[in-house]
Amino acid sequence: MRGRPRGGDAIDAAVDERDTVGFVAVCRAPDPTSRYLTGRAFDCDLVFVRVDGETHLRVPSTVEPPSLPVASVRVDDRLPGRAAAAVLAEHAASEGTVLAPRTIPHDAALHLEAAGYDLASTAAVEDARAVKDDAERDAIEAAQRAATRGVGRAAAILSAATVEAADDRDGGSVGNDRGDDGEAVLSWDDAPLSSERLRRQVNATLAAEGVDYTGATTVRAGTRGGGNEPVELRPGEPIVVSVGPRGPTGYRGALARTFVVDPDGGWERRAHVACDAARKVSLVEADPGDDAGFLGSELRAETAAFGFSMADEVTRDVGGGIGLAAREDPPLDGDRELVAGNVLRVRSAVTHPDHGRVELTDVLVVGEDGPRLLGDAPTGLDPSRW
Amino acid sequence: MRGRPRGGDAIDAAVDERDTVGFVAVCRAPDPTSRYLTGRAFDCDLVFVRVDGETHLRVPSTVEPPSLPVASVRVDDRLPGRAAAAVLAEHAASEGTVLAPRTIPHDAALHLEAAGYDLASTAAVEDARAVKDDAERDAIEAAQRAATRGVGRAAAILSAATVEAADDRDGGSVGNDRGDDGEAVLSWDDAPLSSERLRRQVNATLAAEGVDYTGATTVRAGTRGGGNEPVELRPGEPIVVSVGPRGPTGYRGALARTFVVDPDGGWERRAHVACDAARKVSLVEADPGDDAGFLGSELRAETAAFGFSMADEVTRDVGGGIGLAAREDPPLDGDRELVAGNVLRVRSAVTHPDHGRVELTDVLVVGEDGPRLLGDAPTGLDPSRW
Repeated sequence: MRGRPRGGDAIDAAVDERDTVGFVAVCRAPDPTSRYLTGRAFDCDLVFVRVDGETHLRVPSTVEPPSLPVASVRVDDRLPGRAAAAVLAEHAASEGTVLAPRTIPHDAALHLEAAGYDLASTAAVEDARAVKDDAERDAIEAAQRAATRGVGRAAAILSAATVEAADDRDGGSVGNDRGDDGEAVLSWDDAPLSSERLRRQVNATLAAEGVDYTGATTVRAGTRGGGNEPVELRPGEPIVVSVGPRGPTGYRGALARTFVVDPDGGWERRAHVACDAARKVSLVEADPGDDAGFLGSELRAETAAFGFSMADEVTRDVGGGIGLAAREDPPLDGDRELVAGNVLRVRSAVTHPDHGRVELTDVLVVGEDGPRLLGDAPTGLDPSRW
Repeated sequence: MRGRPRGGDAIDAAVDERDTVGFVAVCRAPDPTSRYLTGRAFDCDLVFVRVDGETHLRVPSTVEPPSLPVASVRVDDRLPGRAAAAVLAEHAASEGTVLAPRTIPHDAALHLEAAGYDLASTAAVEDARAVKDDAERDAIEAAQRAATRGVGRAAAILSAATVEAADDRDGGSVGNDRGDDGEAVLSWDDAPLSSERLRRQVNATLAAEGVDYTGATTVRAGTRGGGNEPVELRPGEPIVVSVGPRGPTGYRGALARTFVVDPDGGWERRAHVACDAARKVSLVEADPGDDAGFLGSELRAETAAFGFSMADEVTRDVGGGIGLAAREDPPLDGDRELVAGNVLRVRSAVTHPDHGRVELTDVLVVGEDGPRLLGDAPTGLDPSRW
């Protein structure tokens, strides 16, 4: 699944040729702001200008301007900052202070300044996005239902899988014939069950549920690979199935469960108890007025309390807001107060170099009356109990 | 498929409260630069710094730092510009000129300048991305194979569909019983065939081919809807099936075909002849050294030559580079020279308010010896001839 790095040589050549110190790119994650602000996905640059309570959109001539209920949608092939300045000059004033996200492209900021405007940054859109309305919660809940079906498909396959000795694979399924550690593998539907094969089955289920992005699906097995390299699945090792489907209106779900086929050890059971206990903390701590960072600390502390190292074993990625992006406000590591309408991805996970990983990820809504889990996926290690 | 606009009120309030002229957001399309530069997809902000031919990456503490073969990957929770400045100070000089894309976030640019660096913009990465290497071409070709299977699935379904009078739907399929204009509908597998049902079938096929993003798939029918609202499909109207799948390494395909079940008119046949003729132009004009904008103009002119209005009927979106993004360099409307290694989405399309739309979209590679189409999808209107 991993490509290879590209562009290094081209950058080096440009750095040399222009006698500069180095090159910096600050890469943005895919930006769903345009979808949030317009209700429509754009695969091109979009200039969004809000003046006097009205919205004006500008797009390049290489796309057909969409029909949207806003004050104006026009083609403008000038650079975005110049197109924006033209809208301001036509519909507002020829100078003054203009708000923009702090991450507005630098060239656009410079063009606006050159046109006579001062820029001031605002977090208005991020703050608004952090508080979901009913339709947004419904969209996330629908994505979460699809997520539950997807992970359930993995549980069904693992439940039906058989254990096969690695040196007897030509003979097909041989029941519970288990070889030495690291030699037995899982088989399903008369063929070896690799992490990639399981991932594709999960994704086919997600797609049938109307999901349009399945690229966040990972299947991690034991200690091998980071979830990107296909490996054969084995009995006795924890298998983490994690999905982050995006539904047709752009909203994301998040669900991870850990399964073990034919368990033989105690580590994953202890890790699972810790993760499940931490997961339950989130259902107590996530009230309006609670501190988001405190919730994150509690999740980690509760996991560590079962004898896992905070520094090396307990995940730092305990979650945060989810919506049009997989990661949005509020993060669970700052000093923000939770408010009703926040929708949070909540993760507890433990990783060990010899045993692998155990993880539970869910999505919950912070309501006026307290937190509510979206979805009803079972949490156990045994796939046959799904 | 369309959500509703959000954030307008929050923006208006912020504009009022801070006594400013207005608000500007320049929304970036999902940015695959991080994947290009690192070979790995990131769903968080990524600071990429290249110094002395070595790459340094910085990520926020809310993600687990990936293991990548670069000089350093570290957690840094400072704002990206400050994190980048710290890397430069440690590994390069404490002042000097630094290259960056012109669209680097404005706050990052200001933080770099405050730290003592001058910024100069570079298109080195975009330019490098416009010329694909063999592995990139293979990845696009694989996405195009999946695209062909997906559109082929639509052809198979349309080929098997029956025509049913709208007022006789309870009776199930009734063969070629066609009512008045606008009353007959298509039926498949004993149920009405809507654009959404067809779209999901196409997407399930794409998912089974290993595609991880199917959200670009649209089914447009006749004159109704812009491809976003589900409608029942009808005989006699052109049905445009367009896909833009992204494969597991992030590279996109693009394919659109137009089908008519039970044709009764001449418009779509004439439009199809025009689009097919224009499509063939791209196979002649796309040589290294040719002008990309001229190719675009020729595509439009060739379509118009069959009696269609350049202003109103012939699409302006004739395509451009495709790769990790659906739209990248070179565009087919500038003065750039084509070079070997460019991979181009090439589209010919005609739209009419009474008849609907006819479109053909393909992907071709500009090779040393001339252009080569990726994929072998048939182009005809008759789905049974796929």
